[in-house]
Amino acid sequence: MKKIIVASTSTVHGSGYLAYILPELATFFKEATTILFIPYARPSGISYEEYTAKAREAFAKIDKKVVGLHEFENPVAAVTEAEAIFTGGGNTFELVNQLYKTEVLAKLQEVVSLGTPYLGTSAGSNICGVTMMNTNDMPIVYPPSFDTMGLIPFNINAHYLDPDPTSKHMGETRETRIKEYHVFNETPVLGLREGSWLAVNGNSIELKGKYTARLFRKGKEAIELSSGTIIDSTILSV
Amino acid sequence: MKKIIVASTSTVHGSGYLAYILPELATFFKEATTILFIPYARPSGISYEEYTAKAREAFAKIDKKVVGLHEFENPVAAVTEAEAIFTGGGNTFELVNQLYKTEVLAKLQEVVSLGTPYLGTSAGSNICGVTMMNTNDMPIVYPPSFDTMGLIPFNINAHYLDPDPTSKHMGETRETRIKEYHVFNETPVLGLREGSWLAVNGNSIELKGKYTARLFRKGKEAIELSSGTIIDSTILSV
Repeated sequence: MKKIIVASTSTVHGSGYLAYILPELATFFKEATTILFIPYARPSGISYEEYTAKAREAFAKIDKKVVGLHEFENPVAAVTEAEAIFTGGGNTFELVNQLYKTEVLAKLQEVVSLGTPYLGTSAGSNICGVTMMNTNDMPIVYPPSFDTMGLIPFNINAHYLDPDPTSKHMGETRETRIKEYHVFNETPVLGLREGSWLAVNGNSIELKGKYTARLFRKGKEAIELSSGTIIDSTILSV
Repeated sequence: MKKIIVASTSTVHGSGYLAYILPELATFFKEATTILFIPYARPSGISYEEYTAKAREAFAKIDKKVVGLHEFENPVAAVTEAEAIFTGGGNTFELVNQLYKTEVLAKLQEVVSLGTPYLGTSAGSNICGVTMMNTNDMPIVYPPSFDTMGLIPFNINAHYLDPDPTSKHMGETRETRIKEYHVFNETPVLGLREGSWLAVNGNSIELKGKYTARLFRKGKEAIELSSGTIIDSTILSV
């Protein structure tokens, strides 16, 4: 049975890395002693070693060991054998590029579908969707495809931001960008605000955290989902 | 001789479409009676017809006719024969995708290199760079490549925004994103603020408009270039 946490962000303003969600993670990962960390997204370009050290420090607080995927000679085998997996945020294009290059993506999808507990934050959450087409990241590398794991039947827009009515900037709002996406695509998109996450248990997908989330479906007005909503096919249907 | 205007935006806050730059355009396009408009970037997903009508209305104020590239059966021939060309903003992924699909990109690069006057705004400016890897846009379609025209020896980040020191949002700043780009790439990137543009005349590239622009080079501190700066190989060298 699928067991996934899809979080908008690793960090909320004014607190430490993963701090806001650690109590939830202690329960979520209670059967695992070691978590396999996928550091490929490299936020600010930090090295795999530095990034893994950051994840290790946070998980030490709930008595979990962390190993980095880059420490294994055979990353596909490491994913196959992992007790639990965490993919951190950073640049989604580089993350997806490396997941294809190492052939980890297909195996990751397989083991998570079969029940290996998986935590994603930001870019690590984007790859749970059908495609990475609603990332906010800059296309700094050209991945072989935008298709991702499709562990949930919609796409994620992490770090969702409401329009700023006082802004004089002419760049597009997040909502405008997602509406442009629906000119060319059908897949629904969930705008997850920082501090929100999805708890996926088998086929049940529940919105958790303090905030509402904004759901965009082609040809319909966007709606706000309150925390606790079960996101099922009725809500998602156009 | 190349004759190009590379503008950060079509529109500055509080004024009409192209209004801030129309006096400059009257001079720039003085030898042309008709401008070929490339509407492929479709901001907010508007149709080619609507978008061309918007460009037509603006250029009527300086007595120029506008024809849309979609009105031609053979778009490559239309680009070849154009007196002058304007590519509007919108989604850079969709723009580049269509420019590859229609095989217009290579011909556009050729005619602009040989002297057909070219105006780009936003996405239409991004394609003047070496690659589109510093766009802010959402990857709503998968283009066959991120390579663009290389009419200037660096990339453009349009609508450049300074970090907001009061923000509680944990998403990355523009500067952080561009620094991540330089972990994987060498090409310099120019952050062009709204209201700034580059005037390219042959091999001379001059920063124009009211604002400074921010230049990012791999392994160096970012610097501000003042309006009037000639952006030459000395400034660009790492």
